[in-house]
Amino acid sequence: MPASTVAADPSLCAPLPVLGRDVVVPLVTGGEVSYAALDYAASAPALQRVWDDVAAYAPYYGSVHRGAGYLSQLSTDLFENSRAEVAAFLGCRPDDEVVFTRSTTDSLNLLAAVLPAHTQVFVFETEHHASLLPWERRADVSVHYLAAPRSPAEAVENLTRALAARGPADGPALVCVTGASNVTGELWPVAELTAAAHAHGARIVLDAAQLVPHRPVDVAGWDVDWVAFSGHKLYAPFGAGVLAGRADWLDGAEPYLAGGGASRTVARRADGGVEVEWHAGAARHEAGSPNVIGAYAIAAACRALTEYGFDTLVAREERLIERVRRGLAEVGQVRVLSLFGGGAPAVGVLSFVVEGWNSSHFAAALSAEYGIGVRDGLFCAHPLVRTLLGGAPQEPGECGAPDAGPGSLNAIRVSFGAGTPDEHVERFLGAVRELVRDGAKWRYRTEGGRCVPDRG
Amino acid sequence: MPASTVAADPSLCAPLPVLGRDVVVPLVTGGEVSYAALDYAASAPALQRVWDDVAAYAPYYGSVHRGAGYLSQLSTDLFENSRAEVAAFLGCRPDDEVVFTRSTTDSLNLLAAVLPAHTQVFVFETEHHASLLPWERRADVSVHYLAAPRSPAEAVENLTRALAARGPADGPALVCVTGASNVTGELWPVAELTAAAHAHGARIVLDAAQLVPHRPVDVAGWDVDWVAFSGHKLYAPFGAGVLAGRADWLDGAEPYLAGGGASRTVARRADGGVEVEWHAGAARHEAGSPNVIGAYAIAAACRALTEYGFDTLVAREERLIERVRRGLAEVGQVRVLSLFGGGAPAVGVLSFVVEGWNSSHFAAALSAEYGIGVRDGLFCAHPLVRTLLGGAPQEPGECGAPDAGPGSLNAIRVSFGAGTPDEHVERFLGAVRELVRDGAKWRYRTEGGRCVPDRG
Repeated sequence: MPASTVAADPSLCAPLPVLGRDVVVPLVTGGEVSYAALDYAASAPALQRVWDDVAAYAPYYGSVHRGAGYLSQLSTDLFENSRAEVAAFLGCRPDDEVVFTRSTTDSLNLLAAVLPAHTQVFVFETEHHASLLPWERRADVSVHYLAAPRSPAEAVENLTRALAARGPADGPALVCVTGASNVTGELWPVAELTAAAHAHGARIVLDAAQLVPHRPVDVAGWDVDWVAFSGHKLYAPFGAGVLAGRADWLDGAEPYLAGGGASRTVARRADGGVEVEWHAGAARHEAGSPNVIGAYAIAAACRALTEYGFDTLVAREERLIERVRRGLAEVGQVRVLSLFGGGAPAVGVLSFVVEGWNSSHFAAALSAEYGIGVRDGLFCAHPLVRTLLGGAPQEPGECGAPDAGPGSLNAIRVSFGAGTPDEHVERFLGAVRELVRDGAKWRYRTEGGRCVPDRG
Repeated sequence: MPASTVAADPSLCAPLPVLGRDVVVPLVTGGEVSYAALDYAASAPALQRVWDDVAAYAPYYGSVHRGAGYLSQLSTDLFENSRAEVAAFLGCRPDDEVVFTRSTTDSLNLLAAVLPAHTQVFVFETEHHASLLPWERRADVSVHYLAAPRSPAEAVENLTRALAARGPADGPALVCVTGASNVTGELWPVAELTAAAHAHGARIVLDAAQLVPHRPVDVAGWDVDWVAFSGHKLYAPFGAGVLAGRADWLDGAEPYLAGGGASRTVARRADGGVEVEWHAGAARHEAGSPNVIGAYAIAAACRALTEYGFDTLVAREERLIERVRRGLAEVGQVRVLSLFGGGAPAVGVLSFVVEGWNSSHFAAALSAEYGIGVRDGLFCAHPLVRTLLGGAPQEPGECGAPDAGPGSLNAIRVSFGAGTPDEHVERFLGAVRELVRDGAKWRYRTEGGRCVPDRG
């Protein structure tokens, strides 16, 4: 029964309309099928509402912060209102800054760039590379990697232990932690980790890339210092992201980019150099013309999700998660990857391996024979996936271009969200059962870094 | 006679359709008028073709470089094809890299980040802040500011003299120069400056933000080492920009951002740290999920302009430039700002001041009483505009938010391009004449950094 025919129980509500819901793709076995986008954790389709809002605005697009004309002033207001809407959506404190960036990766690199000298950064080795790697770039910042915890409580213990070892003369400290894992979907104990950080004088930044599309975020309530996320995972794939939170470190540092917009005044100095006075506030780190459409798209997504309601969104998604977990558990050859144990609270992201299968071949067969788009690889979280796959050092898979060669040990990730109809999940589970039982109908080979049907 | 009724002479061709061409705005004097967007130099409206191409692709949007699904592979191909189309549009050499960034500002900050240690940078003080300021951020790079030249030949002389003073033990050198001024529209002698740079062992980067929308670029022909530009000035306002050129410095430096996509493999080290192997090529500097729509929009603009033909585009624009120059020359109180002298070759960008007028008030009146959107201020090129305004140090205007207070000395900029109908230019000239002759019909005051009609 398609979910769209039932509306009484909010947990059974229809998915939100997304672009691409009517796209059909060819099957290698002949014919066509509607595309099942189950790679939301990489990039989600645009909400129809987001697209409609962007399309309605686009003719009114004008130069922001720059022009005397009507459309320039309208666009400037729309850009600044988008900032305010994002702040409200995140539950920010009144004096928090909302900086528009290009992505979560960009947001965390920005935060790394503004850390005070001699900051100690504490980060779990289980993080996405975007959370794991930016900190080492600062020669005057030390990074402490925390071992993979096997429960939310152990995460808090590991962090507390590491922070307690700090000396009184140590500099500022920052904890970077994910809200929901991009590999297992598992929720991390954000409020508890924040309390532990603050108890030891450390600040905390939340990598909310996988959390924001699925759960309400409460910056002020949780008391996290910063939150980072991307529009393209929040149904708004127009090249913008967000870093929101405390203003002091942002205002106290050099601008992220040098250029117009960030510079208040520039003058030649008598000694031949130039004297620059930089803006404070978000503009300080937004040099260049802002991506107005990207920012507005994020605000439109915030509005759409808020109006739909996270209660309904979460209830619906938890039903799908339960369905996928149960469905995969019925296939003996499937091993689901989990850090915190099988039933841990999670968002709609789940990774697994299939006994006897090369993960890349399995993912290619899901696409070519069933029209299902998942991802295979190590999901830009190599240390975590290797830990979950277990044991000895292996040939690393390649981030982005899956290594489908023999001996590789990648995983398969299925992920979904507000636009996912029940049928996609059911088709996926049916396909997994069928592939495991009957094998692929086609042979696959690696071509240009991709695993493709072997038509030779 | 509207230009659209004549097509025989290419210089009289109709403008290219852009979004917003039918937008009407209210006038403070009552009634409405179609909006005349004459601030292309800040941000141009999207070409209808760009919008249509983006709209056609949007339902097929999928996770790039990341997914096994059909739409992921389609989107990856589309992203990489966009890169190739941009390379062809710019006339790149076969082994050049095309890196997608967020803007010209971002592109030049990226290039600043990858400069070899001890590079000497040579930059004219007349540059936009995005070209002027990124270099000083590197403690191990020295910046040499070149005085404002008063002719193209003097620009080559100034540069040659500065480069000739380099010693044999000096490190690598980079020249950064604009292709067309964002203040005067004047064209700089790119090929000659490139020859001078190369003759002294220096490399050169072209800030083509104002050039690319108006003239064909020929990276290989001119032999420039890099070129930087923004989508939002090229009728593709979706948050992407480009840095294209030599691969060696890009591949030889640390990645611009740390994160997924840029990292090939990440592994824990025995000593507790992490070991990262980074990608080479464009991916090295494109960490995070790429802005596929932004990149595709730029490629769509390249296609549209190429098909329309730069011969026609340039002929049409030169006719409009000539019309504006002549029209303004007829108003004795108007002084057009020029570095190279009144008739110098230029793109459709022109700045001026009006005797007895505060520039911000003038720009506000053009908007409120005529529905014309221009810009007032110092155009993120403070040293240049101050030089052109003449003489003694003045209270600096504010970049972005125009300072309309007494004693300020801002200018007014009018700029146009492929989507500008003749009527916009004629309306603008008529409005200038009328304002100078009769004065504004309304009073204006500064509110929230904007100059607005005083309704009090």
